[in-house]
Amino acid sequence: MHIAIIGAAGMIGRKLTARLIADGGLGSRQITRLTLVDVIEPPLPRGFTGKVKARARDLSAPGAAEKIIARRPDVIFHLAAIVSGEAELDFDKGYRINLDGTRQLFEAIRAVHAEDGYRPRVVFTSSCAVFGSPFPTPIPDDFHLTPLTSYGTQKAISELLLADYTRRGIFDGIGIRLPTICIRPGKPNRAASGFFSGILREPLIGQEAVLPVPEDVRHWHASPRSAVGFLIHGATIDLTPVGADRSLSMPGVSATVGEQIEALRRIAGDKAVKLIRREPDELVMRIVAGWAQGFTATRARELGFVAENSFDEIIQVHIEDELEGRIA
Amino acid sequence: MHIAIIGAAGMIGRKLTARLIADGGLGSRQITRLTLVDVIEPPLPRGFTGKVKARARDLSAPGAAEKIIARRPDVIFHLAAIVSGEAELDFDKGYRINLDGTRQLFEAIRAVHAEDGYRPRVVFTSSCAVFGSPFPTPIPDDFHLTPLTSYGTQKAISELLLADYTRRGIFDGIGIRLPTICIRPGKPNRAASGFFSGILREPLIGQEAVLPVPEDVRHWHASPRSAVGFLIHGATIDLTPVGADRSLSMPGVSATVGEQIEALRRIAGDKAVKLIRREPDELVMRIVAGWAQGFTATRARELGFVAENSFDEIIQVHIEDELEGRIA
Repeated sequence: MHIAIIGAAGMIGRKLTARLIADGGLGSRQITRLTLVDVIEPPLPRGFTGKVKARARDLSAPGAAEKIIARRPDVIFHLAAIVSGEAELDFDKGYRINLDGTRQLFEAIRAVHAEDGYRPRVVFTSSCAVFGSPFPTPIPDDFHLTPLTSYGTQKAISELLLADYTRRGIFDGIGIRLPTICIRPGKPNRAASGFFSGILREPLIGQEAVLPVPEDVRHWHASPRSAVGFLIHGATIDLTPVGADRSLSMPGVSATVGEQIEALRRIAGDKAVKLIRREPDELVMRIVAGWAQGFTATRARELGFVAENSFDEIIQVHIEDELEGRIA
Repeated sequence: MHIAIIGAAGMIGRKLTARLIADGGLGSRQITRLTLVDVIEPPLPRGFTGKVKARARDLSAPGAAEKIIARRPDVIFHLAAIVSGEAELDFDKGYRINLDGTRQLFEAIRAVHAEDGYRPRVVFTSSCAVFGSPFPTPIPDDFHLTPLTSYGTQKAISELLLADYTRRGIFDGIGIRLPTICIRPGKPNRAASGFFSGILREPLIGQEAVLPVPEDVRHWHASPRSAVGFLIHGATIDLTPVGADRSLSMPGVSATVGEQIEALRRIAGDKAVKLIRREPDELVMRIVAGWAQGFTATRARELGFVAENSFDEIIQVHIEDELEGRIA
């Protein structure tokens, strides 16, 4: 089977590629061809014996989507997006990539569908940012989408398009609303959500981390491994029971920063916790105050989507997947 | 003040124009200029002493939105849309007018806003079609949008854009989710919802009407007069209390077809009711089964939006506004 990953150079894209190659197949089918696309050329994966193409393409550029669809991938993972902060700063770029790029992809599929009935599985990564306060905790599956950022708006619109194209039989789509991914590997970044990972990731390698919010801030998390698992599960299950509402809030762990820190203490001791430096930041506090604290994720759980059950598990996954089992 | 009505040749557009001219102003301000736009040239209204331009324009054509915005209307009523049935049959046309046209209007405002801070009020007509079954009855204000038509999808997307452009301060927008308008004046049409009006309108003038569904079918209605009232109220009230979620389900009358018929009997007698001919239509039944039966409309009511309280009132409005007070 032929799998295309759009946004293959990103953190989730690279982990998804690696997992697909390690698995050798998707569901019961062998993977014979991989098309990897991103705005920068994705790295050529190792250990894959099938055909692979890695291409630098801007999904919103004329003809880019058509080129990806030309070889009729059976499954398309659409992970590409301008992130929240950048989409808020650059109105045009956010709408161009996150809305027009997505629509051009869907239109490219529609054109081939009209020719010969081509109908791939489309797995689209959406986000908790489609929700905005005020909301109940946990947020139920039938709660309205009230994004408070342009990024969230673009994701919510893409979800609506995904549902309509699916309803019309153009493709078989599923939207995966990812929790905040924790622990995000790599260097500290300037995303407002960065500290949720940083206060664990840095101390686990003996480095200092900054905590800009109080310990009672509660948020919704899942590991990178779970995120990849959601995507693969979404690509393989029968979507008939999903019905018309094609986007699902994924399961995760609802935890306060204090609970995160206690999990770190259990796993890495007081010396790790001592590396967390409190440095309150009003702006980050204000941004984070509008974020979801938890979801029932009932529909997703019933469909077999699984995340971690505790922050201890989330930390253990990081130690296994990123630190070769060793902590400082 | 300068008011633009896009979709001015439609039934609601013409009634809105007439009402604005009869009132002479909007809120406390006098209307000095009217810009009336539709795909066909709207009729020049009588009795208006200010400046008026009536133009045939396709909102989705290049430059059309810019022309409407060039003279900086203070209030823009955006009523233009390809209707549900046509948007379902013609995928491209529906998305072009209902989504791209709306977005081009918003973008034209953004361009002028960027120049000099222009920030008009935008009153957008949305629809109950943004909801799809299964849903609770009545539908609460925080229920998710799960449109089951491309039309509903396009309206839901436009609502999201309206909210984002408003949040960014580009304009001050409000989305008015209209109930099914009843009694729609004019000739019988082929809309699936047409019978809700037809079974009252035709008998009131001594003509036969066809009822394609059982009498226990329940739906959500308001008069054309109420619809115009919603738009004018939305154009004049302070929208600060509306918050980030800028589209509101309007109040209306939740009634079964049987209740409609009993109201007709009270007002026009058995001889009117006898003009309703039962002719079950499986297709219409199936379409209507997916429609909303009622809304709490709590937010809209708290903001002062008002509809009829009974079907008797809805019929009386029709007799006053369309039949000069006389029935057959």
